[in-house]
Amino acid sequence: MKKRNIDEINKKSLALHLKHKGVFSVASKTAINNMSDLSLVYTPGVGAVSSFVVKNKDKTRDYTMKGNSVAVISDGSAVLGLGNIGPEGALPVMEGKCLLFKKFANIDAVPIVLNTQDTEEIIKTIKAISPTFGGINLEDISAPRCFEIEKRLKEELSIPVMHDDQHGTAIIVLAGLLNALKVVKKKIESVRVVISGAGAAGTAITKILLLAGVRNILVLDRSGIIHKNRADITAEKAELASITNSDNKTGTAIDAFVGADVFVGVSGPNLVNPEMIASMNKDSIVFTLANPVPEIMPDLALKAGARIVATGRSDFPNQLNNAQVFPGVFRGALDNRVNKITDEMKIKAAHEIAKLIKKPTEQNIIPKIFDKRLAKTVAKVIK
Amino acid sequence: MKKRNIDEINKKSLALHLKHKGVFSVASKTAINNMSDLSLVYTPGVGAVSSFVVKNKDKTRDYTMKGNSVAVISDGSAVLGLGNIGPEGALPVMEGKCLLFKKFANIDAVPIVLNTQDTEEIIKTIKAISPTFGGINLEDISAPRCFEIEKRLKEELSIPVMHDDQHGTAIIVLAGLLNALKVVKKKIESVRVVISGAGAAGTAITKILLLAGVRNILVLDRSGIIHKNRADITAEKAELASITNSDNKTGTAIDAFVGADVFVGVSGPNLVNPEMIASMNKDSIVFTLANPVPEIMPDLALKAGARIVATGRSDFPNQLNNAQVFPGVFRGALDNRVNKITDEMKIKAAHEIAKLIKKPTEQNIIPKIFDKRLAKTVAKVIK
Repeated sequence: MKKRNIDEINKKSLALHLKHKGVFSVASKTAINNMSDLSLVYTPGVGAVSSFVVKNKDKTRDYTMKGNSVAVISDGSAVLGLGNIGPEGALPVMEGKCLLFKKFANIDAVPIVLNTQDTEEIIKTIKAISPTFGGINLEDISAPRCFEIEKRLKEELSIPVMHDDQHGTAIIVLAGLLNALKVVKKKIESVRVVISGAGAAGTAITKILLLAGVRNILVLDRSGIIHKNRADITAEKAELASITNSDNKTGTAIDAFVGADVFVGVSGPNLVNPEMIASMNKDSIVFTLANPVPEIMPDLALKAGARIVATGRSDFPNQLNNAQVFPGVFRGALDNRVNKITDEMKIKAAHEIAKLIKKPTEQNIIPKIFDKRLAKTVAKVIK
Repeated sequence: MKKRNIDEINKKSLALHLKHKGVFSVASKTAINNMSDLSLVYTPGVGAVSSFVVKNKDKTRDYTMKGNSVAVISDGSAVLGLGNIGPEGALPVMEGKCLLFKKFANIDAVPIVLNTQDTEEIIKTIKAISPTFGGINLEDISAPRCFEIEKRLKEELSIPVMHDDQHGTAIIVLAGLLNALKVVKKKIESVRVVISGAGAAGTAITKILLLAGVRNILVLDRSGIIHKNRADITAEKAELASITNSDNKTGTAIDAFVGADVFVGVSGPNLVNPEMIASMNKDSIVFTLANPVPEIMPDLALKAGARIVATGRSDFPNQLNNAQVFPGVFRGALDNRVNKITDEMKIKAAHEIAKLIKKPTEQNIIPKIFDKRLAKTVAKVIK
């Protein structure tokens, strides 16, 4: 796809949504053309299905939508790069996510946006509606509430729960990094990584990279490098400080970049300048993932010396987007009746995605979103 | 449709649900075949829609699924004739309802079953998920909780809320009665009506018939005629006693039938015998609506002297089912941006449904479920 004017895309998207009243729709898996058809999906026939699943609760997933459905739930507190815009603003994004679930993994996903941002109320609401669904995909919920909400729901529900902004992003970043390291011939144990953004995505990326073998990570927030002696940080950031930055390095983003091998940006537009890229080690890897405007534009990063650049966007090479991940994760969880998506599964998924590119190059470290192998490959290891 | 063996229907329904994992499915209103399509339903284009609706909240219904969607919500406490079978048992029925919404009114309805039966928790949960939907259709929630839940949600939400088991049923019963009275040439003001069942449906039918002009109603529960001096009744039944049975008649169901013109059964199987029908006035009207097994089978009622018989089933003439009503009610509410469905609208809807039958006869008092005029006709008066 060629670069396109974002204004034109926006105009087209608005027109499309207005024409159809959104993009999400409902369909029947079976034709209803006469009373005979109706008697099977509605009374009296449906009563037999109800009676059967009540007596055989473990068969509910075989006889109802629960076997193939996921709720895509947001409170609208951290939507795209738009921030805390509430449920109305989140709804178009959740509709789009649901279409991707259908397109890439044939999952019947339902958008649910909430008019509460209270942690306990969100947990209660999701638990109350959970019998309907075979999985819960949390979206666009801001940190630190997203950590508690996901943790509690994983403990208290017997269906898989995943906060996509955390783990979808973390899996695709690890997959991209594995292939990028092959291209530049560096080892995961020896690279120094700078992560910009200590919210949902940054935290999950940090944790998965550590589990995957990275030893040296600096995490940046708005105030600079996160370290153990910073007085201004939350409990979640204090945890990050305890598992990263073992040298207890202090300073600004500029200081962090000097001598780094890998940059992963999940923060905001234009936070990185060419000088910072130029100060990185040779053969540097730059994942500038803020959407739609990245931390640094790819052409600037390449000119400043980066060898491999990836973005979250579809109009540049090497798109890293959780859309490459979440359909397959839930396809696997539903098919394999997985109730908890574990760290081991996530790391395996990243390795399997990376392996789909036989010979990674600077311009080709990751399968494209429309690559049909993606969901199947990921689904196989979520077991 | 000929009478069919219920066992055969049940077997077919079970096989159909197993084959597809339920019957509810999700679809896209637009093709997603390439990155260009994707850029409109997902990032970056969808961001423009999010930003727009946040700045123009009143346009949310024009640009998102909210404009054409209804949540079909049950706690599984009063499912069909099966009783309190919980959310798993309710799910197949809610899926079926959603397909009827789509088939008859092109509404994108989403099943939601709840794992709580606590009134306050149900209200909170529905309020929390309400930004997603343009309407709330409550289903199969037992009395008396259904009254409080519907009342509170109507007060506290700005989208239409309807408990279908109450009002869908009440509207179709009134429509059928209007035409049945034309056939037997009796006036609504002068008939004596016996209603069996003082739950959700019976209460709503009583209230709509009184508003429509009926003056003389006896309501029956398991203990017989409801009257003001009964010590054993709930607040809701005491209210029924205060608006019906002005002669303060006491006694059993057998006593109630003597000299009645109309019977409406929304109670349970085989509660009425031929002798009770025979004791009614000449040209009696018998709506024996318990599903799937009615209070009395139509052939028995006719043999005992009933002139017009209706059931809730599709395999007999004169099917009275809320499926003839709820799609049109919500189609109208969505199209006309109605936030409260009022008694006036319901009564108008019943009259308009009745008028669709130009010359009512004993075997033809009501349009069939597949009559395409139904939803359109009802929708027009929900404004």
